[in-house]
Amino acid sequence: MYRFAPGDVVLLIGPDHRVHIVRLQEGQHLGTHHGLLAHEQLIGQRPGVTVHTHKGIPYRAFEPGTADLIRHLPRRTQIIYPKDAAYILLRLNIQPGVRVIEAGTGSGALTLALARAVGPEGRVYSYEQRPEHQTLARENLARLGLLERVSWHLRDIAEGFYETDVDALFLDVRTPWEYIAQARQALRPGGFFGALVPTTNQLSQLLEALQGQGFLLIEVEELLLRPYKATADRLRPVDRMVAHTGYLVFARSTGPETVGPENGRCAP
Amino acid sequence: MYRFAPGDVVLLIGPDHRVHIVRLQEGQHLGTHHGLLAHEQLIGQRPGVTVHTHKGIPYRAFEPGTADLIRHLPRRTQIIYPKDAAYILLRLNIQPGVRVIEAGTGSGALTLALARAVGPEGRVYSYEQRPEHQTLARENLARLGLLERVSWHLRDIAEGFYETDVDALFLDVRTPWEYIAQARQALRPGGFFGALVPTTNQLSQLLEALQGQGFLLIEVEELLLRPYKATADRLRPVDRMVAHTGYLVFARSTGPETVGPENGRCAP
Amino acid sequence: MYRFAPGDVVLLIGPDHRVHIVRLQEGQHLGTHHGLLAHEQLIGQRPGVTVHTHKGIPYRAFEPGTADLIRHLPRRTQIIYPKDAAYILLRLNIQPGVRVIEAGTGSGALTLALARAVGPEGRVYSYEQRPEHQTLARENLARLGLLERVSWHLRDIAEGFYETDVDALFLDVRTPWEYIAQARQALRPGGFFGALVPTTNQLSQLLEALQGQGFLLIEVEELLLRPYKATADRLRPVDRMVAHTGYLVFARSTGPETVGPENGRCAP
Amino acid sequence: MYRFAPGDVVLLIGPDHRVHIVRLQEGQHLGTHHGLLAHEQLIGQRPGVTVHTHKGIPYRAFEPGTADLIRHLPRRTQIIYPKDAAYILLRLNIQPGVRVIEAGTGSGALTLALARAVGPEGRVYSYEQRPEHQTLARENLARLGLLERVSWHLRDIAEGFYETDVDALFLDVRTPWEYIAQARQALRPGGFFGALVPTTNQLSQLLEALQGQGFLLIEVEELLLRPYKATADRLRPVDRMVAHTGYLVFARSTGPETVGPENGRCAP
Repeated sequence: MYRFAPGDVVLLIGPDHRVHIVRLQEGQHLGTHHGLLAHEQLIGQRPGVTVHTHKGIPYRAFEPGTADLIRHLPRRTQIIYPKDAAYILLRLNIQPGVRVIEAGTGSGALTLALARAVGPEGRVYSYEQRPEHQTLARENLARLGLLERVSWHLRDIAEGFYETDVDALFLDVRTPWEYIAQARQALRPGGFFGALVPTTNQLSQLLEALQGQGFLLIEVEELLLRPYKATADRLRPVDRMVAHTGYLVFARSTGPETVGPENGRCAP
Repeated sequence: MYRFAPGDVVLLIGPDHRVHIVRLQEGQHLGTHHGLLAHEQLIGQRPGVTVHTHKGIPYRAFEPGTADLIRHLPRRTQIIYPKDAAYILLRLNIQPGVRVIEAGTGSGALTLALARAVGPEGRVYSYEQRPEHQTLARENLARLGLLERVSWHLRDIAEGFYETDVDALFLDVRTPWEYIAQARQALRPGGFFGALVPTTNQLSQLLEALQGQGFLLIEVEELLLRPYKATADRLRPVDRMVAHTGYLVFARSTGPETVGPENGRCAP
Repeated sequence: MYRFAPGDVVLLIGPDHRVHIVRLQEGQHLGTHHGLLAHEQLIGQRPGVTVHTHKGIPYRAFEPGTADLIRHLPRRTQIIYPKDAAYILLRLNIQPGVRVIEAGTGSGALTLALARAVGPEGRVYSYEQRPEHQTLARENLARLGLLERVSWHLRDIAEGFYETDVDALFLDVRTPWEYIAQARQALRPGGFFGALVPTTNQLSQLLEALQGQGFLLIEVEELLLRPYKATADRLRPVDRMVAHTGYLVFARSTGPETVGPENGRCAP
Repeated sequence: MYRFAPGDVVLLIGPDHRVHIVRLQEGQHLGTHHGLLAHEQLIGQRPGVTVHTHKGIPYRAFEPGTADLIRHLPRRTQIIYPKDAAYILLRLNIQPGVRVIEAGTGSGALTLALARAVGPEGRVYSYEQRPEHQTLARENLARLGLLERVSWHLRDIAEGFYETDVDALFLDVRTPWEYIAQARQALRPGGFFGALVPTTNQLSQLLEALQGQGFLLIEVEELLLRPYKATADRLRPVDRMVAHTGYLVFARSTGPETVGPENGRCAP
């Protein structure tokens, strides 16, 4: 039965329905509109517990879900939003036991979601060029006990991926079209490819590269998440929303064998 | 190394980039614009293999991903779309080892996604009132080897759920507000609640019930999926899209203890 | 040939492509990132003119369009967005010469758009209960020379509208369902009805009232406006957008004759 | 007081709330689910009138609004949707008395909306290269009595526009970037420019051309129209919607004077 421990991320919600997210540290206090809340009250307690500020106001504590963890992740980079991470997991067919490559690691938001989804039998191979990003991502996953599910590579993926015959591969880099040949070498025949790009110019270049490398079932989609005010008698969407995170591209590899100009574009 | 066997669902793609999805049966043929394709050619082959129609036209064969399986699921009911299923999995914090309840089973689309995500160590408890739906859903999951990850219940959930202390619970029923007390009894403290409803009237009733039963962190969202034509030099969204599948509601349970009128709405 | 005069609203754009909107006043200066700009430089000039800050940096001046005027309108209330105003004009069949009622006046944003569209031969009848709103709206329209196209009424529309046989009628009030009988009395047979409501609860009540009063061709729509970064080589939607302004309702009146219970809902 | 005449477009709605749109012709009948409806019953009647099928079932008749006329327009080309036409009118500052150029004419959908909005004092200059399109558009506008508000040009706009100093100009052609210099020659200083393009590739090319020709206040937007089922107690969006009509581009001209390379991109 899970109980809160130092270092855990905890969700707290007060009488004003305002959410606080804190990382438990002994001796620390959370400042709320209703007074101070000592972290120590939470340590050793079960999710759902009620604790009180020094003014006696009750707060409820929950363990955060994957979506909460992603939103709250300490970061140095733009991260993949929960709506996109969730859909990427499904479209790349990520399941317990799967082997998946991602590049770049960034702050580790998708790494986290992948590492949870592949389970202890699966494996995530995460590529990054900047050591400071990798360091942060490793810290982020260590805190959640997910460090061993990931192989951390500091490498320019232009030189290729170390792994072969992986089930899935995801690119979240600025020029993904430069690494499609490498992706094909790493993926098993029929392997699942995915990428996220913010601009339509990148999207056009990526589509060309995928067609040139013989990828099939190429699909482009974007997800818009519209939040509503959760008020039964004045129900309506919120005033403002995120208008764009990125275009999602999915495709299937035909395998690592050579793709010649004659069969790249047209032959299946 | 995975090879196609009779009963498997296979994705086939031809030179016109048109997708066919078939369930392999010995002696069967797929009719294409390029001639007949014998299923037997595929049996024993690896994903990515090229097979030929009787006219000699090449087709590529892939194993479908979870999203493909959901889209292709034999069905008697409206099913949950991949975009929603993916997000539900993330927001309900579904991971290998998790115990989750769903009601109703319907044709088993979400059951399939849940069963894959919880892995062999987890468990899905699926409730349905109509035997013919449950039968179809069991067949659908049996075909994918997922039957043992699911406990199948034929029961009116107004009478409550058999399980307690589950990690997550999802309602896809017409009147979810009638079963919120039962959901609270089944969920562990801090457990993840989710529901999908098509109309705003249902949404208002559900929100009231969740507040009345002391649920917290209540959020309402909808996802719009916009597909694009994957054409590098004439890039644009497709002409028509699905405008609405349903409103998604997420919340956290404060635990099965009694909720009185004094703490239902306001106290955390 | 139009030239800028004191009191005019002018759009200014500098080398950083940042937009300033000012109301010309003799003796005033606009503070920019590139120094001060004297309003007097603009008076008597034609749209498109280049003026200079005291540091010699060039700015271009334009007369604002209706959409710019709406965005910039001095206001005390939530106003109707240009996207919605434009669509309302089309769906209510507003043209030169038309007679149209609106309630409430608010800050006069829609009044402005209606007054421009009906031309000197048409007429806008604008109802408002709060004198301070009407005063502001009159000031806003006076500045644009549109005052005489509008009849300004300070009145509770529960008591009915003064006009009959109008071509179109638009309600932007909190409880529009309370005034549908009055709307029917004011509209000519076949007259165009429109309303905007922010919540789904209001929408349900309004739909019931329209059906009860024998309105036909009832349609509900909402418009989402997605702006893009206008950058040729890094084309993408902006990061955040307005998620919701309101639900638009359109219908046609069957005329002011009595609607009995037997023909309210079903008979055409 | 308007009465229906032969040649008029009439909206008919029956007890099943199904809409029929017909062009009145003596001797003709409309086939409905409730029997035949003689056009002659309508001629000479006022909008809102009830007529009966040969089985005695009542139908209501209305005159269509601009949006209805656009939807129903006899066409040979893709037409501009009402949502886009409405917004174009507002963003181009179209009002009674305005002079506006459009190219191409197509089937005349936007021509119709422009001709109505500029009133008898304004003027629409409509360019088209294909005579058969122009012929159809002229017929469409003749039927509505709008023929004299439009100057019809059969001309390749690469050779320029005949008019100068126009208030607004709209391009709905395949390669709008080729005509931006010509547009600048035709527009008055500060004149309003608009265009619609379906693909992101066209959009990038158009943006470059506008910047190169010194246009300012360049904005790109798209409008999504989401229709709802107008059912008070089961309120929800419809199942499917139009996902894309085109990207709208708006800009202001700095005037017809020569634009050199030094002031094209940066100087205001």
